[in-house]
Amino acid sequence: HSKPLAIRNVTVTDSFWHAEQELVRTAVIPFQWRALNDQVPGAEPSYCMHNFKAAAAQNAAKHTQGTQFVPPTYTDRGFNALPDDPAHPDDDKFYGFVFQDTDFSKWIEAVGYSLAQHPDAELEATADQAIDIVCAAQLDNGYLDTYYILNGMDRHFTNLKDHHELYCLGHLVEGAVAYYQGTGKDKLLKAAARFADYVASRFGTEEGKLDGYPGHEIAEMALVRLAEATGESKYADLAAYFVRQRGQSPLYFEREDRARAEHEGQTFRPNTNKPKPYAYYQAHEPAVDQHEAVGHAVRAAYFYSGLADVARITGDKALTDAAHKLWRNIVDKKLYLTGGIGGTRHGEAFAADYELANDLAYSETCAAIALAFFSRRMLEIEAKSEYADVMETALYNTVLAGMALDGKSFFYVNPLEVRPRAVNYGDDNWSHVKTVRQKWFGCACCPPNIARIVESVQEYAYTLADDGNTLFTHLYMGGSAACELAGHKVTLDVTANLPWEGTGKAIFHTAGAAVQATLAFRLPAWAGGAAAANAVTTTAAVSRDVRDGYLYLTGEWHDGDTIAFDFPMPVRMVVSNPRVSENTGRVAFVRGPIVFAAEGHDNGEQLQSLFVDTASVGVDCSGVQAVPFDFTSGATGMDEKGTGEVDPVTRHMVMLRVPALREAAPVETPDDADLDAPRSPLYTAWRPVKCEPVTATLIPYFAWANRGQTEMRVWLNAK
Amino acid sequence: HSKPLAIRNVTVTDSFWHAEQELVRTAVIPFQWRALNDQVPGAEPSYCMHNFKAAAAQNAAKHTQGTQFVPPTYTDRGFNALPDDPAHPDDDKFYGFVFQDTDFSKWIEAVGYSLAQHPDAELEATADQAIDIVCAAQLDNGYLDTYYILNGMDRHFTNLKDHHELYCLGHLVEGAVAYYQGTGKDKLLKAAARFADYVASRFGTEEGKLDGYPGHEIAEMALVRLAEATGESKYADLAAYFVRQRGQSPLYFEREDRARAEHEGQTFRPNTNKPKPYAYYQAHEPAVDQHEAVGHAVRAAYFYSGLADVARITGDKALTDAAHKLWRNIVDKKLYLTGGIGGTRHGEAFAADYELANDLAYSETCAAIALAFFSRRMLEIEAKSEYADVMETALYNTVLAGMALDGKSFFYVNPLEVRPRAVNYGDDNWSHVKTVRQKWFGCACCPPNIARIVESVQEYAYTLADDGNTLFTHLYMGGSAACELAGHKVTLDVTANLPWEGTGKAIFHTAGAAVQATLAFRLPAWAGGAAAANAVTTTAAVSRDVRDGYLYLTGEWHDGDTIAFDFPMPVRMVVSNPRVSENTGRVAFVRGPIVFAAEGHDNGEQLQSLFVDTASVGVDCSGVQAVPFDFTSGATGMDEKGTGEVDPVTRHMVMLRVPALREAAPVETPDDADLDAPRSPLYTAWRPVKCEPVTATLIPYFAWANRGQTEMRVWLNAK
Repeated sequence: HSKPLAIRNVTVTDSFWHAEQELVRTAVIPFQWRALNDQVPGAEPSYCMHNFKAAAAQNAAKHTQGTQFVPPTYTDRGFNALPDDPAHPDDDKFYGFVFQDTDFSKWIEAVGYSLAQHPDAELEATADQAIDIVCAAQLDNGYLDTYYILNGMDRHFTNLKDHHELYCLGHLVEGAVAYYQGTGKDKLLKAAARFADYVASRFGTEEGKLDGYPGHEIAEMALVRLAEATGESKYADLAAYFVRQRGQSPLYFEREDRARAEHEGQTFRPNTNKPKPYAYYQAHEPAVDQHEAVGHAVRAAYFYSGLADVARITGDKALTDAAHKLWRNIVDKKLYLTGGIGGTRHGEAFAADYELANDLAYSETCAAIALAFFSRRMLEIEAKSEYADVMETALYNTVLAGMALDGKSFFYVNPLEVRPRAVNYGDDNWSHVKTVRQKWFGCACCPPNIARIVESVQEYAYTLADDGNTLFTHLYMGGSAACELAGHKVTLDVTANLPWEGTGKAIFHTAGAAVQATLAFRLPAWAGGAAAANAVTTTAAVSRDVRDGYLYLTGEWHDGDTIAFDFPMPVRMVVSNPRVSENTGRVAFVRGPIVFAAEGHDNGEQLQSLFVDTASVGVDCSGVQAVPFDFTSGATGMDEKGTGEVDPVTRHMVMLRVPALREAAPVETPDDADLDAPRSPLYTAWRPVKCEPVTATLIPYFAWANRGQTEMRVWLNAK
Repeated sequence: HSKPLAIRNVTVTDSFWHAEQELVRTAVIPFQWRALNDQVPGAEPSYCMHNFKAAAAQNAAKHTQGTQFVPPTYTDRGFNALPDDPAHPDDDKFYGFVFQDTDFSKWIEAVGYSLAQHPDAELEATADQAIDIVCAAQLDNGYLDTYYILNGMDRHFTNLKDHHELYCLGHLVEGAVAYYQGTGKDKLLKAAARFADYVASRFGTEEGKLDGYPGHEIAEMALVRLAEATGESKYADLAAYFVRQRGQSPLYFEREDRARAEHEGQTFRPNTNKPKPYAYYQAHEPAVDQHEAVGHAVRAAYFYSGLADVARITGDKALTDAAHKLWRNIVDKKLYLTGGIGGTRHGEAFAADYELANDLAYSETCAAIALAFFSRRMLEIEAKSEYADVMETALYNTVLAGMALDGKSFFYVNPLEVRPRAVNYGDDNWSHVKTVRQKWFGCACCPPNIARIVESVQEYAYTLADDGNTLFTHLYMGGSAACELAGHKVTLDVTANLPWEGTGKAIFHTAGAAVQATLAFRLPAWAGGAAAANAVTTTAAVSRDVRDGYLYLTGEWHDGDTIAFDFPMPVRMVVSNPRVSENTGRVAFVRGPIVFAAEGHDNGEQLQSLFVDTASVGVDCSGVQAVPFDFTSGATGMDEKGTGEVDPVTRHMVMLRVPALREAAPVETPDDADLDAPRSPLYTAWRPVKCEPVTATLIPYFAWANRGQTEMRVWLNAK
């Protein structure tokens, strides 16, 4: 077992991730603050801070009025309550989604990480004021979800399945811990802990308690984090309870649904989630019996993250096995090449095994983030490079694809193939797909999730073994990592050129004498896995051991020792498992952790008629050129809201030039053409296709849709 | 211009279509009668005859009570009104879909055709009794839709868009004309005419009339048929009004929606059909401006059929051009190889140009039937073999695929590719797809539609030119066709072996001396088009002229003259237009009018890993064997309702044996396998694939899903 280093002890200075973090810090975090204060012209108001203020005012009134205070009686105001006039919400009413409080929690989490790296007194003051408002909304018993505080506490915890109270708890804890770790300030941490204490007092299998669990998971992993931040094991116990109780028979959500229907005088309707009732919530069977990743992909991967955390801290073998089997199911049968998960828009969910539709993919940005969470937690259980490979793939591809290069527009859905003409026709099969990124959405899940993971990406780079003697480097990221290794304060100063080059080095620093310890470096699958051990050399006289995709360098380390790495980064042409019917006859290109895509912008539209010339590419991909270049974004808006607009930003990247063949598309007769216009038949007799040799230009997938609307394809047809 | 021969003057005796007609006559029509009398155990009741009886009783009460009769005030009972206890419906209430009356109309239509071919006193007596019940329900003013008669006439004709009154009129007319033509009895015809008269009195652009039109088209073509059956041009005028008025600004349906919202005190919500408001109903713009086939595919093709009828009888060039452009759009961009239309389940509608998803296809059986209607009407405008080719494809493939070989179960949706594991997983992308045929559905559109087109298939085989001098043979079907040609009673006795062989002959008979006339024979595209003229020889000394895919034989015909045809029926390997991204790299096989499909049953599952060996097949398909064989259906039911059950039936067919290659599917590790079980990776480096040569067995598409649940694919991957 190992744990990430404290966020304040790791810096990120390389040109790639530093640029992403600066984008989030300078563009996203300030925007997000305006958004949650309803100050973004043209955007749907969040009402997030409005709600906290309303709850705080109610709280103040309660204290002033004492026994004369009449609390509101519960009124169901729907999943998303909006005022009649958006500009004039009632001061004392709740607005927005039931989980609207989490807008604040996600923001404060990103702020906490940002301040850890980049002190900013003004931002910190703003954050402290926001925290004051939030804390003022908390009830005396610790409860803190403004939806029920304002709509009526008499019905709180009666709809765990859909009303996100424990999801709000989870995000609040995540934000509070991050702000505490980033600034050392614990006001919000204490508030979050009090909410957790209240929840602990109400939930459990003991008589008189609710034997329920979150409808949208996150509290599980958040509570483990709270336990580790505070040293209070009771929070880990609550997390373990949530994980273990989930899906126990008789199903809590079914009992809850039945009781609520009865209370509301409605007919109970059995849940019809496939493949089993309540599978959307991963609440269909106990965690230890879950071997297939099912249901809402974000919920699922959040749950599996918490499950892995609890497995790690408890050492429970059945839970650990379940985590492994769920991982195996995802990675072997349900994972997009881009690190995305969630094959179907219906339920934003995992599809059947091997059903990985490219154009219909959901592959939500948040789900890729959740998969990175799960991956890191599997790494914490055991250092196997498979976990880091998947984590790295998710981070560099789907997570980053979720944000335009100017940081101002976002994708929630990340298909691997887009035909704008089909998507924009109005067929609801594609109603979830956007051909260009959208400005901040009303439901602010993905953009703030990108913000919090980008600002904390260094937490994914290193872990320290629980015995304190092994420092793992999982991701090669320029910057420094400080920790106490084998009882000594040490620092690893890393230079790296990922994701474009596999070269770099790490310099070991220690104030004292020699340190007897192990430095373990991941051998990326993209560099050849175990064979890449040869690419790592060191000046230190240490032993070398390769295990589970890591090179373990063990011995005496002295100040100034260097570890140089020169990982090969060949272009790889990959195919899917033959069971993936979507990708038969198709190939995709990967180099290092970067997945590539063809855009019509570079290759002409009708990308289905662009064939990779596999013979010219060759098994070793020697026919492909990897060309460093400066990519410049820029697109004008497609409507009055500026949809699709991207400001010019220039970023260093690598493109691939791939030998390919082009089949000419026959003329398309417009529907209103004269009746004697030439027609091109829909079906014709097969003949060997005549193709022109061309060079296909592929850009990193994460950079697609930064130059206006165009076709895009990751899996290219091959000949 | 030409017209079909009277149904009583054409017989169908060949083994293929005679078998289909016998199936419908002996299995479907009796079942249908029980269904509309709610006598099918296990099936949802239709309530169709119940409704007519209830309306008849109300009518009788009105006549008995006179001025004391209080008519029901309108109550909206939803699109599908069901009794609390299905076994005990209230005697005086309407149940079922708003268009439930059409269950009767479709049945009586099939009965009419059946009696024309196969007199059956018992069936005719049953039909006459049913007609008595239906006619007793008709109001004095001629109105005849039990939904409003029973729910309240005060609101009739206020929801043309969704309440199907004019659709009920259309089907009633179709049924009445068929029964009249089949039996000579005109009671129902007169009732239908009276309903049409009432509609004519209420609709039009004149002051005080409703300037609306049907929400679900069919009345247009039905009324033209009524005009032709009765000689009353006023019905053609009403049809022309409906066709021309449709989509005129300001849009009637929008005005109606607005007025209804106002009446009901609700907020008017603008229609959001794509690509234009009300496009689902083809009511987005005037007919003459419609060049792209859009919206609900059955509605659309029914409309285009009516449009073509009106274009033919009026000679209106703008309408004729619109019909041609709509035809061109369908055939060049939106037609499945199987003759199916409707690419998306959303709105059961046409998808965007070239978007022809195989596994997600809607391709409703009724839509293929509607396309056959449209095709025949285009043929009536002008004899071009293109129309007959499409008509034949729809009839032999998608229409017949809609019914199991035992006539006892049905497909509404006809995909070109089915992976049962994906379909049955519960992903709503496939919620419309069934992997096995279903017993009679509650919404009885497709099965009775199959019944009526199969029983009248001879109407698609021949037309007689309006000048009476040219007899066209469009489909080669064994049987005899009698008509008055150039003033003489003549008969064409045809033997044919379609769809399995292109050989046959026609013998010309006339009682009198020579007949100076033209016999025109279609030269099928599958036989080589114009080049196939050489395959037609005659003993008569007549001139030969090939025009628009027809061989015109003109001159003196004598009794006993024969025309022999020996159309080549090569196997054809076809590809899609490169703009169809779904089918890149795929081929399909066709022989004569029959489209073939691979089933897992014959070829093993994982059909995506079965590759056609195009080099071995060859451009001329000489590598493929067409093998006559006896196909035997048979499958046991998958559930207590017998879903998927097919009785053993043996039918002569042809299968194709195609040189192919099989890529072995790697082992699939079960999700609950031990953690050390071998895994097969989802993505691997490309290598030239190792394949085993195999022979793929393809069966006619229409015969798929007759041997239990299995994968199916029309478009096969190719190497």
